[in-house]
Amino acid sequence: MADAMRRLIDLLRQLPGVGEKTANRFVFHVLSAAPAYGHALSEAVRDVVERVAPCAVCGNLSESSPCGVCADPRRDGSVICVVEKVQDLVAIENSQEYRGLYHVLHGVLSPLDGKGPEHIRCEQLMQRLPGEVREVILATSASVEGEATAIYLKKRIEERGIRVTRIASGIPVGGELEYSDRGTIGRALAGRREMP
Amino acid sequence: MADAMRRLIDLLRQLPGVGEKTANRFVFHVLSAAPAYGHALSEAVRDVVERVAPCAVCGNLSESSPCGVCADPRRDGSVICVVEKVQDLVAIENSQEYRGLYHVLHGVLSPLDGKGPEHIRCEQLMQRLPGEVREVILATSASVEGEATAIYLKKRIEERGIRVTRIASGIPVGGELEYSDRGTIGRALAGRREMP
Repeated sequence: MADAMRRLIDLLRQLPGVGEKTANRFVFHVLSAAPAYGHALSEAVRDVVERVAPCAVCGNLSESSPCGVCADPRRDGSVICVVEKVQDLVAIENSQEYRGLYHVLHGVLSPLDGKGPEHIRCEQLMQRLPGEVREVILATSASVEGEATAIYLKKRIEERGIRVTRIASGIPVGGELEYSDRGTIGRALAGRREMP
Repeated sequence: MADAMRRLIDLLRQLPGVGEKTANRFVFHVLSAAPAYGHALSEAVRDVVERVAPCAVCGNLSESSPCGVCADPRRDGSVICVVEKVQDLVAIENSQEYRGLYHVLHGVLSPLDGKGPEHIRCEQLMQRLPGEVREVILATSASVEGEATAIYLKKRIEERGIRVTRIASGIPVGGELEYSDRGTIGRALAGRREMP
């Protein structure tokens, strides 16, 4: 096999979920497509690496700093939604259910892995709180680390006299109780509300 | 989402088996890896497009023409193995069971799709036959089109007085008769041989 193909296969194999066979298929796809496709792909990879960086305010990945969300005057600056990673921000944006600002921690507290508050953009969040912020929504995962991170942040933020909320945990829409785990059912019961 | 990320996701989605979510994961992987990875990936894609092209002799994809196989003096020039696509050549090379030369058709005969002999590097194969070639192994797929292509090529090559063989079709190694289809069992029976 040509060296250039071998090199590309080895790099593609480092992508999540991509093994030797999938990497091979990708390379043959690039070779069988019009050369314009490969050139565009090469340039798009380079552009992403060279142009995209975390927003200095919220940590969102963006070509500008502050990012499009932080710079958008139509967003509600009185609410900050705290997420673990940029993918979570993208998921919330795609839901079109939120019009406030974000803060991306780029991690979670994980004492066993030696990850403390200094590793998760926690101070950057604290620095954003003086001003118009009235509520911080903690949208870290419903995992052990996500919960621990939320508990830690709640304590820190409430000291500033700002309202802290946690996103609801329970049965996902379309999900069945029968197949839900005990923890989820427990959360769903504990989080029950009056019906409107 | 940053424009550069959106562009890359749209290009990655064109790869076989890659949807929106997988493309997203790839992009975030590139962004979370060291910048050197993204630069290497970008350059490797560009190199493949710019440097790799079909070998003028056998049709194998290579950075040189003739390709490494055609130019290798240790290969047996008296046998040519005919395959449909470069991936098949790679599979045979990986088996380490063959030391002759190849001819890649880059397609199969498919009259319903308007694909005749002029579309599959058939004449290029004929031009290679005068000389030291003593055997042509037809290793097209065991599909309808692969069989039809093999039958057509057999006729053409035998006219030149050269031995033509067809790779065996039957139960794959590790395969069970119970789960084999009727066609495969039929082929396995028809192709039975004396045990050594």
